[in-house]
Parts: sequence; structure tokens; C-alpha cells
Amino acid sequence: MTLNIGIIGLGFMGSDHVKRVAQRINGAKLAGVCDLKKDLAEKYAKEYGAKVFDNGIDLIDSPDIDAIMVVTRPHETHEQFVIHAIEVGKFVFCEKPLTLTAAGCQKIIDAEVKGGKRLVQVGFMRRYDPGYMEMKKEIDANEYGEPLLIHATHRNVSVDETYDTSMSIIETAIHEADVLHWLLGEDYESGTTFLPKKQTKYTHSKLHDPQIITLDTKSGVHIDLEVFVNDQIGYDINCEVVCEDGIVRLGTPSVTSVKTNTLKNQTKIPVDCTERFKTAYDNELQHWVNDVQQNKVTGPSSWDGLVAMVTCDALAKSRDNNAERVAIKLPDNKPAIYEDKVTQNA
Amino acid sequence: MTLNIGIIGLGFMGSDHVKRVAQRINGAKLAGVCDLKKDLAEKYAKEYGAKVFDNGIDLIDSPDIDAIMVVTRPHETHEQFVIHAIEVGKFVFCEKPLTLTAAGCQKIIDAEVKGGKRLVQVGFMRRYDPGYMEMKKEIDANEYGEPLLIHATHRNVSVDETYDTSMSIIETAIHEADVLHWLLGEDYESGTTFLPKKQTKYTHSKLHDPQIITLDTKSGVHIDLEVFVNDQIGYDINCEVVCEDGIVRLGTPSVTSVKTNTLKNQTKIPVDCTERFKTAYDNELQHWVNDVQQNKVTGPSSWDGLVAMVTCDALAKSRDNNAERVAIKLPDNKPAIYEDKVTQNA
Amino acid sequence: MTLNIGIIGLGFMGSDHVKRVAQRINGAKLAGVCDLKKDLAEKYAKEYGAKVFDNGIDLIDSPDIDAIMVVTRPHETHEQFVIHAIEVGKFVFCEKPLTLTAAGCQKIIDAEVKGGKRLVQVGFMRRYDPGYMEMKKEIDANEYGEPLLIHATHRNVSVDETYDTSMSIIETAIHEADVLHWLLGEDYESGTTFLPKKQTKYTHSKLHDPQIITLDTKSGVHIDLEVFVNDQIGYDINCEVVCEDGIVRLGTPSVTSVKTNTLKNQTKIPVDCTERFKTAYDNELQHWVNDVQQNKVTGPSSWDGLVAMVTCDALAKSRDNNAERVAIKLPDNKPAIYEDKVTQNA
Amino acid sequence: MTLNIGIIGLGFMGSDHVKRVAQRINGAKLAGVCDLKKDLAEKYAKEYGAKVFDNGIDLIDSPDIDAIMVVTRPHETHEQFVIHAIEVGKFVFCEKPLTLTAAGCQKIIDAEVKGGKRLVQVGFMRRYDPGYMEMKKEIDANEYGEPLLIHATHRNVSVDETYDTSMSIIETAIHEADVLHWLLGEDYESGTTFLPKKQTKYTHSKLHDPQIITLDTKSGVHIDLEVFVNDQIGYDINCEVVCEDGIVRLGTPSVTSVKTNTLKNQTKIPVDCTERFKTAYDNELQHWVNDVQQNKVTGPSSWDGLVAMVTCDALAKSRDNNAERVAIKLPDNKPAIYEDKVTQNA
Repeated sequence: MTLNIGIIGLGFMGSDHVKRVAQRINGAKLAGVCDLKKDLAEKYAKEYGAKVFDNGIDLIDSPDIDAIMVVTRPHETHEQFVIHAIEVGKFVFCEKPLTLTAAGCQKIIDAEVKGGKRLVQVGFMRRYDPGYMEMKKEIDANEYGEPLLIHATHRNVSVDETYDTSMSIIETAIHEADVLHWLLGEDYESGTTFLPKKQTKYTHSKLHDPQIITLDTKSGVHIDLEVFVNDQIGYDINCEVVCEDGIVRLGTPSVTSVKTNTLKNQTKIPVDCTERFKTAYDNELQHWVNDVQQNKVTGPSSWDGLVAMVTCDALAKSRDNNAERVAIKLPDNKPAIYEDKVTQNA
Repeated sequence: MTLNIGIIGLGFMGSDHVKRVAQRINGAKLAGVCDLKKDLAEKYAKEYGAKVFDNGIDLIDSPDIDAIMVVTRPHETHEQFVIHAIEVGKFVFCEKPLTLTAAGCQKIIDAEVKGGKRLVQVGFMRRYDPGYMEMKKEIDANEYGEPLLIHATHRNVSVDETYDTSMSIIETAIHEADVLHWLLGEDYESGTTFLPKKQTKYTHSKLHDPQIITLDTKSGVHIDLEVFVNDQIGYDINCEVVCEDGIVRLGTPSVTSVKTNTLKNQTKIPVDCTERFKTAYDNELQHWVNDVQQNKVTGPSSWDGLVAMVTCDALAKSRDNNAERVAIKLPDNKPAIYEDKVTQNA
Repeated sequence: MTLNIGIIGLGFMGSDHVKRVAQRINGAKLAGVCDLKKDLAEKYAKEYGAKVFDNGIDLIDSPDIDAIMVVTRPHETHEQFVIHAIEVGKFVFCEKPLTLTAAGCQKIIDAEVKGGKRLVQVGFMRRYDPGYMEMKKEIDANEYGEPLLIHATHRNVSVDETYDTSMSIIETAIHEADVLHWLLGEDYESGTTFLPKKQTKYTHSKLHDPQIITLDTKSGVHIDLEVFVNDQIGYDINCEVVCEDGIVRLGTPSVTSVKTNTLKNQTKIPVDCTERFKTAYDNELQHWVNDVQQNKVTGPSSWDGLVAMVTCDALAKSRDNNAERVAIKLPDNKPAIYEDKVTQNA
Repeated sequence: MTLNIGIIGLGFMGSDHVKRVAQRINGAKLAGVCDLKKDLAEKYAKEYGAKVFDNGIDLIDSPDIDAIMVVTRPHETHEQFVIHAIEVGKFVFCEKPLTLTAAGCQKIIDAEVKGGKRLVQVGFMRRYDPGYMEMKKEIDANEYGEPLLIHATHRNVSVDETYDTSMSIIETAIHEADVLHWLLGEDYESGTTFLPKKQTKYTHSKLHDPQIITLDTKSGVHIDLEVFVNDQIGYDINCEVVCEDGIVRLGTPSVTSVKTNTLKNQTKIPVDCTERFKTAYDNELQHWVNDVQQNKVTGPSSWDGLVAMVTCDALAKSRDNNAERVAIKLPDNKPAIYEDKVTQNA
């Protein structure tokens, strides 16, 4: 049975999901769209035979919509839509960050727990990237011994004036905050954020760029992460896990290479996240749709959303306190509905 | 509207297509299956809610089936099913080779022309591989000047006793016979097949392995192709296009790399075509389904199937005549229905 | 005119230098050798027509010896030989570390300054590695804008029980302490050494392995360095300089690659420093011999030896104080004889 | 004892050898130089303290010269100098091609045999390249089973109007003619040269570019070689040996890589042979000097020079006869002085 999906928010990521749901996902149909920009909603509705809704609440309430994707900006707006979807008992996929505060995440968790079952999946798509999945499989199988260190970079071509120092954590490093502890299968103990004195000339007065983050896990794995959002060279994601018997690294798959008349042998660097993680986004959505058709959801949960937010809060506190080491403390009582083992199908 | 697809033939490739249609393609539903191995058909039918048909003709005739995929072996059996589908006016996707003779291809073409419109797509999936597509885009845009030479290899881990000398061309090199002239946008002039004296110890008495093929195009581009089907090292597809101002090469995307305790830095080689060309197969089917839903088909045609077969026939003749250069002559009258420009969406 | 070289110390590095001087360096002759292991000295003396000396002082004093190489272990023994060579006015090449204390370096500097000219070169061979040299050339030319960050690793297959926690800095990280500030053309401001909780099972009770070091330069470039001396996978040296307009990385040159029957494409990782930096060691010695024949020395100086030692002392202090940031303070009065611009010829 | 070397011919390669002998080779001294361009000879003589000779014969005859390097152009002039050196009993290194005809090579062989010992080494430097040496070591050790095929390219940035169609073989492919049979340890059976219809726009009327060569060995290994001397992209040497259990490939060592602000990850391609094979040329000369100091020569011989020439003659005949397969027939009687096993020290 085809799943009728409604998408709230049609910006950069929302538009990308529109095409994904309408054209690439098995068992899904783009049934409804909604955006403050009415003409954009009407354009997609016409193109893919979907219905336009005046607002997100109407879309969620509509009997024509089986499941909801929340892709709104600013991210503060996620919370109301996710909670409303939970209240009417519909499955809801929410782009990261789930909310902008740990308190907000907790409210969503409370609503979900009250309903007695998981309804929310958070858009941490890297867990569905073939590279990270292969690394996790090898780490879980202990193929190269215990992980000891991780070196990671999260680099982005450029950002505009609305992107400030805080967003390097909350918008960007949040992906590693999620994917690295998932990769290792354990929680963080503490973190630091260091602002190097020297910055790129391409940044602006409200953005300290680059930034250096460290995370230490409960078992003692040490992680360093470069966040550099004006690198000029591409969307350059790297992750190297140093284990006792081997070093596993994420690749940057390149489908062709070229030798050019400048004495260079070249491969391409992706321009943005939708190019670099196209397969991951597709896998993520397909997995979610397959799950929902079986009346369940097993991907990244509200709890994962909370873990990422608590981690980001600690990193922000460290940044504001001269890079001091800040403990990362999760709530003690992890609700039982989040205890199911997370598994992804490739 | 969801397309109800029936698959005839559930072997290695047929089973792969079953999962693709049932789980990964947007707008498609696995509606019917059919195989001489009844229990296999029943297994898939149960798993995906499809109907089992006693034979391919019944499946094609069924009102529950909108479009057909022919994946039967031996390949001689393709012809009857494809022609029957044409006769009842249904779209049909046929795995390569379309048939085993040029005469067979011509019969299919005649049937299709009689019906007045294209109904057939042949499974030359490489045209949908991101690497080949990127190369074609660059060549079409003349980014690196005129192509002069192509070096290609088609390597396979191993084959069994049923695979003989002729199959290196008809089963294996046929992919390059199709994709390379498509890449260059022109027809072949001639070809040769050379059987080197030295063979691998892993072959058997009925298979000369490896083999060396050359193809020259109308404009004079020279191609060499190694076909080696017992290479032991993986499914290793390479294609290097030497142009006047640059050399463009197909990559072997690797999602991770590992440094191991044998002083080695390693990337993986795919084990078979379904691993190497997973994205290509998915793109191919999605493109076909999207087309059929719009009552058309624009992928590789019966004519392309004929071109590949005529090319293979010339290469076989060369092989049997001491590697002499053999002309590759296509029929003069290319029917008008095949003149539409072939385009793929990524 | 051929330079008669005497080598004191014939261990792992000393033996490597014996072959270099005797077989690969233009204008040099192995004239004398000396080691506590008399038979080893006699073996090399016989093999290359050199003279055996009973002790280093005799070798230095001999009229048959034009220039001296000090390669003794333990490193405490360097100081006496270097100072004696200075006192008799002969050029002396000393393997790193120059001495084990800043005070020792200062004594050598004082002796050299007293003599009024440079006589000492320290064995920081990486400055002569084609990779580092190419990077420095590009950075000096500002090809990719200002450097902002450096990520480095210094990995080694394994160490024995005599190698303890302190040696990760003084024996290993000392190479980066020298080469990275040379690469950037500026001094360090501060450093930290962090001991991650999780260690490799291949270490022993007296060695904390791996360790994480950071260095910040005067201008604010931030450096992180992994020191891991039981990595099992090879001698794996990496250095990535993140600049404003590009990211420059040191390669691990591999002269061949192999696709093997384990579905792997492999390149080799060097087993130790003499394999990885063979060309660098050769360049270094050739450059030194060429210089000495012109009655001068322009490679890494006693001052560079002091800078490295002061840096190591700060890193050790940080390690012993819970990874606190420790200032790196060089003596104010850099003697004039060290002001000459250091240049290497490839 | 230092070897006094005289160099005849100070063009592109001669000048390169001048610097090598004077600055990088152990045990050698640049003692004499000679060139039609007198001022060039005087320049080098002054720079390195060598003597200028009026002509090659005087240089060879001089008691100040122990051993001779013949690097003259045009290559026809090699023969007289090499034979004169043999006649006066001095060791002589001659750049490839030894002469331009098989008859010329035979004359040199006759003179050498008459003298009763090897005095000549031919400049096939690739045998001293670390990459080819590693491949040969692995092939000799049968690490990957029997070799079956070789794919090679010999690409060059550009050539001028004096370089014509014949030189693609005699100047360029001659390197592979030598190194590939050495790599495999066996002689050739036959060869072909094919001139593809399509040529690069960068060629001129007297040069057919690119050209495709094949060689088959006695045991049946099949080789294809692209010779492309106006590739625009660099000096791009590739060699892939397909064996039964693995595929071994020559690398293009790159000491750094760069990610640039054009979304590219780049490594460098060497600009010419002296950059690509710098280490090979150095090894070759050092090996020759070491040998000569021991009154012998073990590198590529006059016989190897003859083998290369006979191979080139067959390839030229094939080229002039529509790419027909031409047998490669070596003289039956290989003189005993050439039977010594060729070995190189790294």
C-alpha cells in the first residue's frame, strides 16, 4: 500500500525531499505540501499531483496524509509540528536538529512516551551512508580491534551572513555529534570547543571560522573534529577511525577522474551535502517508508535528537568558557520505547 | 499511478530485479512473477504480495500486469516473450542480450515497427551508471577535445564450465559493444578479437581466457578491450578515454579504505556486477518506470540490441579467422521510431 | 675534493648513514668509524676501506677525518662529541635530538657562538623530504592563502619495552616540533599533550600510547598531532595544511599498486623511517657535504635543536599537568650566527 | 678511488647527466666535457672543475678520463665514440638508442666481443626505477602467478617539428621494447604497429600521433602499448601487468596532493622523463660507477641495445605494412660475454 506523505517546509532540504519522495522512493507518494511561500507549494503540488495545505497543522490533520515530514526553518518551528503529529498518532520524520533546545527535545520525548510508541524519526542521514555503514559493520565486528581515536573534518564551501559562530555546532557539528557515537556504539563523556586565533579571510564578524571540537567517549576514545564552513574547496567530509589493528577511513567516492593539461590528475569534491549524501538521504527515506508501512519506526529517534542537543549544549558551553572540558550528561531515565536496537537496511 | 510489473525469469539477475522493483523503485509494484522453478516464484510472490503465473505468456496476457520484465535464461527464450508483449501492446524491459542472433533482433524490430511505436527497452544498464554518465556529459560538451583512443577492461572473478569462448563476447564484451559507441556518439567501423597464446590456469578446455578485442569507430577512434573472466581479483571494470586535451577515466568508487597490519593501504574491488552497478541498475529501472508511466520508452532500444549483436557477430568472426579485421555493417534503414534522442535522467 | 667523514655510533641509524656516506653521496668518503661494539666498527671499516677508532674523541681529533657525524645512543652522549668537534673547529652533523635538555643545547650554542661560526647541523631530515619541500614552497609562495590549521600523524609499527611515555615526545613528536614551525615559517606560542583514556593493547605499562599533541603558533595557526608508536600498520606519516584557499597534503608515495585475489586494491605503507624518508636522508647528507666542502653549513642548526627541545619540554610539562596549555618560550637573544636564511637544494 | 668521467654531448640529457655526475653520484667526478657548442662545454667545465675537450675522440683518449658517457645527438654519432672507447679499452655508458640500426649494434657487439669483455652499458634507465624494480621482483618471485597481459602507455606532453612518425618507435617506444621483456624475463615473438585514423590536432604533417603497438612474447604474453607524444597532460607512463592471481601496476608517485577551490582533489603529473625517472637515472649511474670501480659492467648491454633495435625494426615494418604481424628475430648466436645475469642494486 502506497504511503501518502505530506511535507511541511519547502526550502533547500524540503525541495530535495519533495523530489525524493515523488520520484525515487518505493511505496511513497507525495500527497501534500505546505510552505509560507504559497507559490512554491503550488508549483510542487502541480508538478507531482499533490495537495496544497494552508498550514502545517491542517496538513497533519488531513485524512489524505498518512505520514509527515517536517523540514521547516527556522528550526524552532519543528517542535509544534512534531508534537501535533504525535498527538494525532501519525508517524513524523523531522529534519535535524529536532529542536534547538534540550528542553524542546524532552517535550517531544514526553509526548511520544505518553503515546506509548515511537512515532518520530530524526534526519540524521549519515547513519544511512554506505561509507559510514561499512565502517560501523567493521567496527561492530571488531575487524580491526578496539577503536582508539577518531579524526574527523566537516568542511563546507561557504556560508552567508546569517550563519554565526553558534551554528558551527548546532547546524554543522551536530551531524558528527550523532554519527560518531552511533559508529562507536557508546555515549560521550565530555567535549571541548576551541576557537583558533587565526581565521579565514572569507568569514564575517559574527562567525568564528574554523573551529576545533574534541569529544571523549565513556570508554575513552578521543575524537577531534575540524568544523570549517568557508573552506572554498567543497563539501569535504572525512572520518578516520584509528583502531588497534587497523585504520579505517571514510572515502569520498569519485565516479571519474581526469588528467588535464595543467599537469594534474583530478577527482571531484562534492559541492554540498545533497550531492555528497544523495545515497544516504535516499536510503534514509526508503528505510523510513518501509518501516512506516509496517507501522513502526526504527531509525534515529527523539532520544537521539536529545543526545545530539545535549552534546551541542556542552560544546557551546566549552566554547564560551575558553575551551574548558565540559561533561556531557544525558538524562538518567532513557524511556523503554527507545531501547530497541537501531538497525538499517542498505 | 503505480505500475504493476510482472517479471519472467527469477535467476541471478531476475531475483535482483525482484528486490529492486519491490523495494527500491518509485511508482512500481511487483505484481506478478514466473519461473520454471515454481517454488522460487511462490517464495517471491508470498514475500512481496505478487501473483504467480504458470508461464510467461499468461503473465504477459494478464490484465493485472501493466508492464513486463524478461530476464529468462537461456537468452534464446527472450525473443518469444518480447514479441508477445509487443503484440499485446505492453511495454517490455528485456535483459541483454536482446536475443542471440541479429536475425532475432530484426524480428523484434519488425514487430515493434509494425506496432508503430517503441515498446522495448534493453538492459544496457551501464548507460545509467553515474561514472559513464559523467564521462558522456564531458565528452558531449567537448570538455577535453576530441576522443582519440579508449582503453577498457571487463574483468570478472570466475566463471563455471558452462561459460565458453563465445560467451566472452556475447555475454561479457557486449556491454562495452553497447556503452562505448553510446559514449562516443557514433557507430563502429570494424573490430578484431585476438586470442593470446598464454591463458590463465583457472580456465577450462572450452574457454579461451583472457581475450583481447579492438573496435574502431567511423571517425577513427581506436578502442582496445581486455575481457578476462577468471581474474580472481574482483569485478574490475575500467574505461579510459584519451582525448586531445585530457584523459577521462571511469573510477571504481570505494566508500571506505583501510590501512591494515600487513603494511597495506586497501580499497575494495566489487565482487560482481550487481555490486558494481547497483546504482546503474536502480537508475535504469526508475527511468524505465517513469517513462512507461508517461506511455513511452526512451532507454536503449531494440535497435541498440541489434547494433550490439551485429558488433558481437563481427568480433566472433574475427576470433574465428585469426584476428583479422572484420567490418561492422548495420542495416541501412534505421526505422524512424528509433531516431528519438536517448536521454537519461540521473 | 673528497670529504673524509667519520661516523661515531653504528646502531640502526648509524649503520644506515654508513651505507649512505660510503655508497650514495657525491664528494664523500667513509674515512673512519667508531662504536662500543668493536666488531661492528671493524666490519664496516673493512667493507668500505675506513679506519676504526677506539673512541669518538680520537676520531674527532684525527687528521684523517675532515667532518664528523654523531649518531650515538643514548642521546645524552651527543653533547660531549658535538662540543669537542666545535672546539677543534670541525664540522659536525648530529642526529636528533641534539641533546636531551634545553640546557645541553644552550651549551652547544654557547660553544658554537664562541667559535664565531656555525659548525653544527642537526638531523632533522624531513626538511629535505620532497613532499615537505613542495608544501613549504607552495606555502611560502602563498599559493593557497594563509595556513589556518595543520592535522598531522606520526605513526610507527611498534616499539620495545625501553621506549616509555616520555619518548613519544622526545624521540617521536620532536620531528613535527621541528618540521611544522619550519613549514609555517614562525615560532610556537603554546602546546598541550593529552593522554586519551583508551590505549592500544599492544603497549606496555610504561608507555601511554597513543598520545595527542596540539601546538599553536604565534600567528594563531592551530596544529593537532597524533603520536601512535604501536600502530601495527606501518610507518604512517601524514600532514595536512588547511589554508584559506586550498588544503595541501603530504603524500605517501607508492611506486606500485596491486589488485589481489582478496577483492582488494593495495598500495604499500613503509615499514620504518629509513624506508619512508630514504630520499630525505640522502638529500640531507648530500646537502651537508656540499656545504661543508664550501666551508659552511646551512641546514638545521643548534638553535633549531634548542627550539625543538624547548617545545618538547613544554609538551612534557603539559602532559604531566593534565593537558594544560603551556607556553613555549624561546630565549630572547638568538645569536647572529643563526640568522642566515635556511635553504635546501633539492 | 674516484672515477674520472668524461661526457660527450651536452644537450638536454647530457646536461642532466653533468649535474648528476658532478653532484649526486658517489665515487664519481666530472673530469671532462665535450660538445659542438664550445661555450656550453666551457660553462660546465668552469662550474664543476672539469676539462674541456675539442672532440669526443680526444676526450676518450685522454689519460685524465677513466670512463666515458656518450650522450650525443643525432644518435648516429653514438657508434663511432662507443667503438673507439672499446678499442682503447675504456668503459663507456651510451644513452639509448645505442645506434639507429641493428647493423650498427652488431658492429659494437663485434668490437666488444673481440676485446673479450663487456665495456658498454646502454642507458635503459627504467630498469633502475623503483617501481619497475618492485614489479620485476614480484614477477620473478611468482607472487601473483604467471603474467598474461601487459597494458602500457608512453605519453609525452608535446614534441616539435623534428620529431616524425618513425621516432614514436625509435625514440619513444624503445623504452618499453627494452623494459617489458626484461620485466618478463623472456624474448619477443612478434609485434605490430597500428596507426589509428583519428589523430590529435596538436600533431603535424610528418607525425602520426597517437600510435598503437602490440608485442607478443615467446611464451605468449600479449602486450599493448599506447605511444602518444602530444598528450598535453604530462609525461604519463603506465604499465599494468595482468597475472593469474593479481594485477600489478606501476604508480606515478606524487609527494603531495591538493584540494583546490575548483572542487578538485589534485595530484601532479611529471612534466618530462628527467622528473619522472630522476631516481632511476641516479640509480643507473650510481650502479654503473660502482661496477666500473670494480672493473666490470652488469647493466643493460650492447646485446640489449641490439634486441631493442631489432624489435623497433619489426615494429616499423609492421607500421609500413598496414599493421601486419611481424616476427621479431634475434641473431642466433648470443655471445657468451652477454650471458651474465643482469642484476641491479636498489
